[in-house]
This record gives sequence, C-alpha cells and structure tokens, in this order.
Amino acid sequence: MSLKNPRIAVVGAGAIGGYYGCMLARAGHEVHFLVRSDYDAVKEKGYEIRLKDESFNIQPAGVYQKPEDIGPVDLVIVAIKSTANAAVPKLVLPLVGPGTLVLSLQNGMGNVEFLAKHIPAVQILGGLCFVCINRVSPGVIENYLPGQIYIGEFMGSYRERTLRLVEMFEQAGVTCYFSRSLEESLWRKLCWNIPFNGLSIAAGGVTTDKILASKELRELARSLMEEVRAAAHAHGHDISDEFLEEQFTVTEKMGAYKPSSMIDFTAGREVEVEAIFGEPLRRGEGRKVRMPTLRTLYLLLRGLCARS
Amino acid sequence: MSLKNPRIAVVGAGAIGGYYGCMLARAGHEVHFLVRSDYDAVKEKGYEIRLKDESFNIQPAGVYQKPEDIGPVDLVIVAIKSTANAAVPKLVLPLVGPGTLVLSLQNGMGNVEFLAKHIPAVQILGGLCFVCINRVSPGVIENYLPGQIYIGEFMGSYRERTLRLVEMFEQAGVTCYFSRSLEESLWRKLCWNIPFNGLSIAAGGVTTDKILASKELRELARSLMEEVRAAAHAHGHDISDEFLEEQFTVTEKMGAYKPSSMIDFTAGREVEVEAIFGEPLRRGEGRKVRMPTLRTLYLLLRGLCARS
Repeated sequence: MSLKNPRIAVVGAGAIGGYYGCMLARAGHEVHFLVRSDYDAVKEKGYEIRLKDESFNIQPAGVYQKPEDIGPVDLVIVAIKSTANAAVPKLVLPLVGPGTLVLSLQNGMGNVEFLAKHIPAVQILGGLCFVCINRVSPGVIENYLPGQIYIGEFMGSYRERTLRLVEMFEQAGVTCYFSRSLEESLWRKLCWNIPFNGLSIAAGGVTTDKILASKELRELARSLMEEVRAAAHAHGHDISDEFLEEQFTVTEKMGAYKPSSMIDFTAGREVEVEAIFGEPLRRGEGRKVRMPTLRTLYLLLRGLCARS
Repeated sequence: MSLKNPRIAVVGAGAIGGYYGCMLARAGHEVHFLVRSDYDAVKEKGYEIRLKDESFNIQPAGVYQKPEDIGPVDLVIVAIKSTANAAVPKLVLPLVGPGTLVLSLQNGMGNVEFLAKHIPAVQILGGLCFVCINRVSPGVIENYLPGQIYIGEFMGSYRERTLRLVEMFEQAGVTCYFSRSLEESLWRKLCWNIPFNGLSIAAGGVTTDKILASKELRELARSLMEEVRAAAHAHGHDISDEFLEEQFTVTEKMGAYKPSSMIDFTAGREVEVEAIFGEPLRRGEGRKVRMPTLRTLYLLLRGLCARS
C-alpha cells in the first residue's frame, strides 16, 4: 500500500471510526466513510468533532452506504462493533485489494482472527484504543480526553509499515504507539476492561468510582485481573503485580467514569459480551486456566444482556 | 414449657412473625406481639390476614413495643430479619425463662448459633419456612400459597417436645414437618435460596422464571447448587443429583416468583446477604470447599446492596 497519499476507508463510522477518520481527514488524508444509521445526517452536514479545547467540522471526501461504491483502498479502518462481525465480509471485502492494509480498532478479543478468516493475515493489523469517545447525536462526536492507540501486526512480526502507520496517526494528532505483541497488549487491556466494564454492569450500572469505593467490588476486580493475568501467562505473556496495581491507580484518576459496555447496557444497546468476556474466558480455559470469577461474570452478563 | 396452653410471644411481627402468630392466635393460643414499625396500626386495628380463599382478622392478646411488658413466656417465635440480629439480646432475653423454648423462623444460616450465644442451646429450635408471605401494608399480610415449615432442634437430638410443637402448628392450619437435622434441612433450603434469591438480584431484579428462561443463568444456578452441595457434604450431609434437579422443577411451577431478597432489594430494604450467602460461604470455605461462584455472587451482592 501507499502510506504517502493513502485512500482510506472507515467501516462503521460511529464514535471510534468517525473520530479517527475525521482526525486523519483533518490532517489532509482522503477518507471515505461507510456509514449505516447516521448516513443521512453525515451526508448532509458532515461530522462535527468536539475536543476539549476546540471543535472542528469535516465534510468527508465521501459518505457511502455500500462498500462497492468505494472500492479497493490503501487502508481500511474497521470500527464496527464486534457484535456485528458477521457483516464484516460483506462490508470489508469490497474495499480490499492485494495491497490493502486492514486495521481493526474494535474492542475485545477475536476480531483480528475473525478478519483473518476472510483476508490474508499478512494484511491485518489491530489497534487498541484507550479512549472514551462518545457519539452524542448523528454525526456529532465528543472526545475530551486525548487517549491513545497501540497498533500492532496480527502476524506479530516487526514491519516498517507498522511504524509508518503509527507515524500517520501521530501526525494527525492521535497519540499512537507501536505494539510488538498485539496479543500481549490485548491481554493487558483486558486487565482493565474485564473488571471495570464487567462490574460496572453487574453492580447495577455504576461508574468506576463506585467500584473502587466498595471493598468487595475491588476484591472482585482484583480476582478478575488475576484470572486474566493467569490466562495471559498461559499464552506466554507475563504481567506484573505492579501492572495490576496500576489499573486501580489510573482508574482512581478517572473519577466517575462510564465504561463503554456500561454505556451500551444502560442505553439498551447490545454489549460486546463475547469479545470482551467470552473469548478471553474460552482462551484461558482452553489452556486449562481456572477462571471461575470470570466464568460467573460472563454467564451473569449473558443473562443480564439477554434480558434487555 | 407447657405446650398445652402456652403463652407465646412473637418478636418481629412483620410478614413471617405476623402470619404465624395470627395462625396460632386463630387456633385459640395466647399470642403476644412485639411490634416495631407497624405498632400503631396493629395496636389500633389488629392484623388482617389474607389467604387464598378467605381472610380473617386478629385482635391480638397483646401488642407491645418493649419485651419487658410481656415478660417470660412458654414459646418465643423469633422472626426479625437476620440483619437485625444485634438487637436479639435486648428483644428476646426478657421473654426467656428457664423453661422457655425459642424458635427462630429467620432466613439463612447462623441465626440459631447467634441465639445460642445468649440463650442455653437446649432451649433453641429452628424452623425453615418455605413460603412467600408478604406484608402489604401495616398489619395487613397476604399468603396465597400455603407453604410449610420444617422444625428441628438446634442440638440436633430427637425430642418429644419438637413433635408437639410441630403438632401445634399443624393444628393451627400450618403444614409443618419435623426435621431430624436442622443443619441438613438448612443446606437443602440454601440449594434453592442461594441461586434463586441471589441471581434474582444479580440479574437485575428479575423473577425466577427469567432465571429459568436463560441458559446462562440456569448454568450459574446449577454451579451455585453444586457448590452448596459440596459444602453440605463437607459438613456430613449428602444431597443427591435428583434433589438439585428438583429445585428447577419446583421453581418452574412457581411462575414469575419474586424471592424475598429480590423484594427487599427492589424496595431498597436491607438484604440478608450475610445469612443467606456470606455464612454458607464461610462455612464451606472453612472446610476447604472451593466455592468460587458463590464467592463472586456474594461479593457482587455486597457491592450491589451497599449501593442502594
């Protein structure tokens, strides 16, 4: 692919896809948005991106309902919810040529593997977004914390293109790091997502400060982290005690934070239960790691989320 | 004690205490009620008991705010919530003489042991109530399913007085059985209470039919039952597979049933988390039984119930 003047397509242009697509567009890149529910609003008025100190509008190079109308591009950013992965072949394949890079910015585990069923593994990258970006109304996206992305190759190997991709995001004003092991980064991210996304729902739709304020919920969070760490270890990744402690420290600074799953749950939208909880559980148990706390949380979330 | 013409005192005359006290009063027994929040209503109008096919009113032999005004009786029925056990010495001791029997009709584990700290063990009995009785307004109690009580001696030994007590309830229209092992009966009752009371709260305040309708919540219920069974086994009580299966079958017949803990939780009242979940967990783990599902549920309920 060409990362000099890449043609970029964003698939699933809600909060995450809309935000990063617009950041890249603002930096001068040609970005095409494949939009579902917000199509009419974005087609008419473009995007409005609200940052902490400024806001800006983007009238995209193109807004589409069908991927065939875009055709093959240099870079596809996949930002649909993991719960809609079944639509990936239909939405993504028309955008992919032999040199196309496909970057998943999706939540949880199993997304790049799913892409690899349909697209050559060597073309796939993953990006882990540590952010809280909200789509507040059609075409209007807020991001008050800069956040960061860790980008890594699905195949794991070091590649110059990865660094160039990281550079492209950095130049567009997105803090971005290169991850030498996408899988390890993901297990680390899950050390936060599993306890805090999970308990924020299971404890009745609470913000993260409520979890930290409860001795019992903190104990549960810690048990979940230790099970995730054990599963990571069984896959060859070591996570330190300090790292687990750090998850509590950083969360304290976040105040009354609403994890994305809790926002989805409260709004009655589908929660990414399989990607964030089910798949890590299956991988851990698949390596004979005991994860009874996660198993209980997972089953409870399945029950809770089926209800709504 | 004399069970011929016993003087009876009911401590904590809400749903359970009010109901059984009134059933005994209707059968001609002299029943004195120690009442807290409903005192004014009961003092003025007595109790109204609504059964499936009939209703009846009871103007009690006495309605009191202080146990000293009743004095020692032949039988004390303790029906305060386990969460208020700290008040037991103050409320119960003035009613107890050397021959007084003290029957706890409280929920969960640890109540008779708590009584035994203050009253000679030989005077203590426990009764497990399989019922759903509701206090719908001050002094007004509904019970549409007859239900049953299992009564046993705290000391475990067979005693003729136990049978006479069972007989007294039976003659008052209450289905009542003699339990040879109060502890075993309690573990068996917990095979229902722990999964169904617990998950009805943890799954978001749902009725038992919703638990049965979810594959995942059924699986959790079954895990919880198996952990309770293992804990019972470690205490010398065997519970069969068939008994566990039966818990699902009987629950199916109950329809959209609201477990008492779920009613308490939804109404913002204190939930008996320690008696129903915490104490069985401690006893199981105290005998080296692994109870990770119950541990998770317990910590979650502590977190959930502290919140409200």
